[in-house]
Amino acid sequence: MWVKVRVGESLSELAREAAARTRTISERLHRHALVTPLTGWAAATEETGTEILLKCEHQQKTGSFKVRGALAKLLSLSDEQRGRGVVAASTGNHGLGVAHALSALGGKGFVCVPEHASPVKVAAIRRYGVEVRVLGADPLETENQARLLAAEAGMSYVSPYNDLDVIAGQGTVGEEIVEQLDGRDRPVDTVVVAVGGGGLISGIGASIKAVLPGVRLVGASPVNDAAMAASVRAGEVTRVDALPTISDGTAGGIEEGSITLPLCAELVDEWVLVTEPEIHSALRFMIDTQHQLIEGAAAMAIAAALKTSRGSGGGATVVVSCGANISSAALAEALLSAHLGGESHRSVRDN
Amino acid sequence: MWVKVRVGESLSELAREAAARTRTISERLHRHALVTPLTGWAAATEETGTEILLKCEHQQKTGSFKVRGALAKLLSLSDEQRGRGVVAASTGNHGLGVAHALSALGGKGFVCVPEHASPVKVAAIRRYGVEVRVLGADPLETENQARLLAAEAGMSYVSPYNDLDVIAGQGTVGEEIVEQLDGRDRPVDTVVVAVGGGGLISGIGASIKAVLPGVRLVGASPVNDAAMAASVRAGEVTRVDALPTISDGTAGGIEEGSITLPLCAELVDEWVLVTEPEIHSALRFMIDTQHQLIEGAAAMAIAAALKTSRGSGGGATVVVSCGANISSAALAEALLSAHLGGESHRSVRDN
Repeated sequence: MWVKVRVGESLSELAREAAARTRTISERLHRHALVTPLTGWAAATEETGTEILLKCEHQQKTGSFKVRGALAKLLSLSDEQRGRGVVAASTGNHGLGVAHALSALGGKGFVCVPEHASPVKVAAIRRYGVEVRVLGADPLETENQARLLAAEAGMSYVSPYNDLDVIAGQGTVGEEIVEQLDGRDRPVDTVVVAVGGGGLISGIGASIKAVLPGVRLVGASPVNDAAMAASVRAGEVTRVDALPTISDGTAGGIEEGSITLPLCAELVDEWVLVTEPEIHSALRFMIDTQHQLIEGAAAMAIAAALKTSRGSGGGATVVVSCGANISSAALAEALLSAHLGGESHRSVRDN
Repeated sequence: MWVKVRVGESLSELAREAAARTRTISERLHRHALVTPLTGWAAATEETGTEILLKCEHQQKTGSFKVRGALAKLLSLSDEQRGRGVVAASTGNHGLGVAHALSALGGKGFVCVPEHASPVKVAAIRRYGVEVRVLGADPLETENQARLLAAEAGMSYVSPYNDLDVIAGQGTVGEEIVEQLDGRDRPVDTVVVAVGGGGLISGIGASIKAVLPGVRLVGASPVNDAAMAASVRAGEVTRVDALPTISDGTAGGIEEGSITLPLCAELVDEWVLVTEPEIHSALRFMIDTQHQLIEGAAAMAIAAALKTSRGSGGGATVVVSCGANISSAALAEALLSAHLGGESHRSVRDN
């Protein structure tokens, strides 16, 4: 299993292309994004009986991996495209990522947010010196109008996940993991990654499996909102009746024709779905033993890693702790729920 | 104000000695402790109208500055003293610091904890491979018995604050701040530091004022437990009727004859006492805008920095965010209080 090969011969052309773009973009991307630490987590290792390693992407600039995809996309544009500018729609980590990328690379563009978006989140995007446009009544309408606006103005729309360059940017997480594991005596069996639109796991899966084809890639999603797992199972983009989840970063449906669907179908070896109480408990465990703040999506991936590793008796598990951007309100509610040991009693959805 | 001088001519001999030991120990200490970042905090700068810089000691190894003092103490011992070993009493940051120092430097020794100490905290100390001894029914008894035991065995007792080498170790935080500020155009007026026993502010004050004598050093303590502020006011070690505080890292009385009393009396220019709701609110503000976890003592210092900087119209303020070791229970309680209370910076719905 622990044999390095230069090219993932068994990978599809799409996955090979993603991994190739990751290698191409990596050096320029790292001028504006951190190589985040891969650290041991003694308490989780004790708890599960399997060595658990944390890829600390919650320490990334902007507090999330999304900045990697945004940087990769902007870096992939021609001078002419850059001159016309970029448009993104998001009040969350993707919006912050695009704002940071624009600020770092000096490009033209703006971030669209829905009416009634949280002023705290809008202020966070504005602090990068990037224009914020209020557009549409809800996130879906904002996205549709932003795409339309981009098309009309000849600007590039930056998708949060359905774009091979964005996927290649997220793939630099996988590339770093491979480098950080280099020289270890004991093999890493499993890599666990949060899945929403599937951009992160597609990028990481392609870049890791191009080098370490035997690694088991686990996709983690909330039981309450697992559109990609359902779509992979069905073999086509599938709508699910989503319930609220503290893993807001992975919430939402998959758009028709998403290239992440074939990538996930190919690359993900196993799906682990976790309940809200499991996510709350993982968040609490991280705070009590590592004293680091993580967001719902990261706690969700960690909950899945703890679940799949407990008593597995195998080699080490790497879990990607993908972000830190949680509101104090959602955090308080989750911790309260973890302490009370019951189901969360009200929604913690982003507003 | 912003003039560097080689030696703080106006400093007492004790303060000069502390600063000298800081310079002596610094290089060896940094083989086992991080130079933590000094970062801008845009949201706090907006909120106060004064530039706020965070010294991110909550990102230090063991999650707290205490590791510096422990390393400095161990490094100051002769080979013979090291051979006989060290004893510390603490279930908190000091215990972790001594455990890390012993593990890093390979010394002999153990950490004493009271009966009924939190198993989570005891496990955290044990993870450094250091022996933990259960001794005494409460922290004061543990400390007294540990001292006795050390004296009988000819071992060195490592005080959490009443020791010039420990103080010199904490002083490396001040030395780093001076180096990190070097080359800035705009002056730094104020440095805000949490005060319990006074070891951190004594070390930082001595090392900063040796180079930048004009900096205003602000001591921060909770209204509920401010023994050093009361002692400095009284000119002698003074007991206070302490109330509970989330700033557990600064809680407790000052022992008779503490060298931190004359150092604080000399070096601290101003005392700012903060209420529990102000601390909860600062913790919430940090989480909502920086998405980093800090402990009560760090939130306490930040609350004082926000209070003293608001509308001051002066140069920048550096606040030492001294640690991250908060339990999820204390965190949940503080955030709940911040959301329910009237002292919040932003409304709950904004998050």
